[in-house]
Amino acid sequence: MTKISPLSGFPEFLSEGRIIEQCVIDTVRRIFELHGFASLETRSVEPLDQLLRKGEIDKEVYVLRRLRAGEDDADSGLGLHYDLTVPFARYVLQHAGQLDFPLRRYQIQRAWRGERPQEGRYREFTQADIDIVGRDRLSLHHDAEIALVISEVFAALPIPRATLHINNRKLAEGFYVGVGATDPAAALRAIDKLDKIGEDKVAELLVEDAGLDAKGADRCLELAKISTPDASFADAVRALGVVNPLLDEGLDELVQVVEQVAEQMEGRQSGAIVADMKIARGLDYYTGTVYETQLEGFESLGSICSGGRYDSLASDGRNTYPGVGISFGISRLLVPLVASGRVVASRSVPTCVLVAVTDEADRSASEAVATALRGRGISTEVAPDAAKFGKQIRHADRRGIPYVWFPDSSSVKDIRSGDQVDADPQTWAPPEADARPQVMLAPDNEEQQP
Amino acid sequence: MTKISPLSGFPEFLSEGRIIEQCVIDTVRRIFELHGFASLETRSVEPLDQLLRKGEIDKEVYVLRRLRAGEDDADSGLGLHYDLTVPFARYVLQHAGQLDFPLRRYQIQRAWRGERPQEGRYREFTQADIDIVGRDRLSLHHDAEIALVISEVFAALPIPRATLHINNRKLAEGFYVGVGATDPAAALRAIDKLDKIGEDKVAELLVEDAGLDAKGADRCLELAKISTPDASFADAVRALGVVNPLLDEGLDELVQVVEQVAEQMEGRQSGAIVADMKIARGLDYYTGTVYETQLEGFESLGSICSGGRYDSLASDGRNTYPGVGISFGISRLLVPLVASGRVVASRSVPTCVLVAVTDEADRSASEAVATALRGRGISTEVAPDAAKFGKQIRHADRRGIPYVWFPDSSSVKDIRSGDQVDADPQTWAPPEADARPQVMLAPDNEEQQP
Repeated sequence: MTKISPLSGFPEFLSEGRIIEQCVIDTVRRIFELHGFASLETRSVEPLDQLLRKGEIDKEVYVLRRLRAGEDDADSGLGLHYDLTVPFARYVLQHAGQLDFPLRRYQIQRAWRGERPQEGRYREFTQADIDIVGRDRLSLHHDAEIALVISEVFAALPIPRATLHINNRKLAEGFYVGVGATDPAAALRAIDKLDKIGEDKVAELLVEDAGLDAKGADRCLELAKISTPDASFADAVRALGVVNPLLDEGLDELVQVVEQVAEQMEGRQSGAIVADMKIARGLDYYTGTVYETQLEGFESLGSICSGGRYDSLASDGRNTYPGVGISFGISRLLVPLVASGRVVASRSVPTCVLVAVTDEADRSASEAVATALRGRGISTEVAPDAAKFGKQIRHADRRGIPYVWFPDSSSVKDIRSGDQVDADPQTWAPPEADARPQVMLAPDNEEQQP
Repeated sequence: MTKISPLSGFPEFLSEGRIIEQCVIDTVRRIFELHGFASLETRSVEPLDQLLRKGEIDKEVYVLRRLRAGEDDADSGLGLHYDLTVPFARYVLQHAGQLDFPLRRYQIQRAWRGERPQEGRYREFTQADIDIVGRDRLSLHHDAEIALVISEVFAALPIPRATLHINNRKLAEGFYVGVGATDPAAALRAIDKLDKIGEDKVAELLVEDAGLDAKGADRCLELAKISTPDASFADAVRALGVVNPLLDEGLDELVQVVEQVAEQMEGRQSGAIVADMKIARGLDYYTGTVYETQLEGFESLGSICSGGRYDSLASDGRNTYPGVGISFGISRLLVPLVASGRVVASRSVPTCVLVAVTDEADRSASEAVATALRGRGISTEVAPDAAKFGKQIRHADRRGIPYVWFPDSSSVKDIRSGDQVDADPQTWAPPEADARPQVMLAPDNEEQQP
């Protein structure tokens, strides 16, 4: 038997990692639903012409072929979706007549890209998206709302500090045009590479691709340095002396979004938010607000949660559907956090109590205890065999189960401390922290032994 | 713009159906975890040679091809899994050294089959599997445990009455050999078709394919008629006067399983269980206990939840991994129940309260109310626009939101009854039944207008 190897780009969690993932997804879902977002799950496939719309040439699509079909009809014409936006746009158009707008949906699903796997990029990955979509119009306050909801999620998760960086496409593009760019989209793409290739190389691109002179390129780089936790960025941008109507519109929108966020975050437990003029989202089709998220200590992952405002998610000729949303890379976040041990679970099974079996003939006594405990919501297993108690305790210990129950003596033992107390299955309850697996952020110990 | 049509075989729920699906999956998960089953999610793909192992020629596999790869390397050699057993077997072998046995896992995921779609069969579907897997040995009481866990799930779900039918392969095969079958597997496959093709045709198959004479075939049909809610089936089988050691072993096992189930089900809320000698699971690789499930009023769907005991889930040369498990067809159950309106949700959004906005300038007052309500776990939205109150109420009503809050008058209105009361966002709470969407079984009204 040859050893079975993992498949590169298709991450899979062992049980502890899966418990962490469940905890994160449960929290994300709870907060999305608290804000009135309804769950949507679409099929995993879309017709290829839908997937390749808008010239999505940078995404490598997996096409489905039926193995046993004849050569002629083997290709199904279907591909696995590479994000959750394309299927959502299709869903909105397909069901527009039955939907109420503004539509608030969240979608937590896998997506697939046949690209070369690299750090933070997988061929199969889980995303959590929220979007608010209007019919023909959608108010700007929803841009602040998305920022607030996602920062509430960050604050509730057992992860390192996440900071949401917000910018506005109009602001950036207006500025670039104002300093002489002939191709503002090229300028956006260049600025988007700042973290990867550095200022000098970006300046070259701004000159070569965006039609700027050296001075204009410098001012774009100056703009990119502006980052403030409040609306004071506006003065800093105006101090650069660039005049352009689109820039004014973008500044106005971003000030409103940042001020609304600041007002509502007062006194709430939330992640950090900054206005950051270097956020560009180079290749995506945003038209106003844009979001990116940096995770402290994991900056090399790039943005773990990105999105923005788009004038048109979709259009059916009669109506257009503008929206604002954000996409949280669950796999991109968790695969490295779990692998590095920065996020850990208190145990790798749901089980809180293992009921020992004294003798196979007495198994029903143990089952009765288990039934009573489960009836009060306590996750319980009965020992698989009437082995010696020491062996039964080791079976619990190896799986992280904190308590072993002995029906003969009506007592329960905390196998971590060794404390054993008399107990009645109709009334005993574990401490809250032991009731279900706890997921925690481990200290960031650089000195830790590998 | 052409109308977008659904894809045959790829079911998708609208928001009410999705809320029902979430409720079902949440319940399934809660009960599995209460019994100490840990969640596992595997990648969606397996190497083709794994998927085609064991000559699974009846499953049509979807192979992944990378759209933009060169002709030579376009086929990835990967296929989408068609069940959750093949990936679980691979997972057990891959990680056997890190796993503790008996291993208890549940897995709720999608699977794909490129077959022609038909009632109850989809190209993409969601399954919920539980299995208990041992290393080299696994006690019989786990066969009763699987039956108990799944019948607890049925009892907790808002679905029509589900009855778990249990049989034993050894019993059936021993009996068939005892009455002269030369190919007992062919006899199993024939009996498996009883509901579809009827007694006469099955009798023909038993003679033609299983090597039985007419009298032997008759006795197989007599066996198939035996079905009892308790262990009394054993006397009925023995009364047929067939002697065979494998039959005795199977009878003994099934009596034990049925008696253990009956003992533990006493006084518990559980679905119905019967011993049923016609259950065969024709094409699958079970070696002892087998399970099928019939849903009252939806018998034409076939079994919505099937499984059994297998001597070897997998083998790595040094160890074999026997197991027992069951697979619950979530899509197979829910797509028809939702489409027929037999299961309904009280609303199609999580939102319990819509906070009205009196004036855009006062939006922050509405936001403050929403924040207070959410802080106490009440799902709340703020109205998208400061429209006339009537319009805001209709926006809530169309989405099934039961309450509208008016910040100006500090009052909340139940828009179903029209009752409006003064309320403080720091203390007000909805009745329990309104806190989140309720999922219910609707009466089966044959007379209902279509």
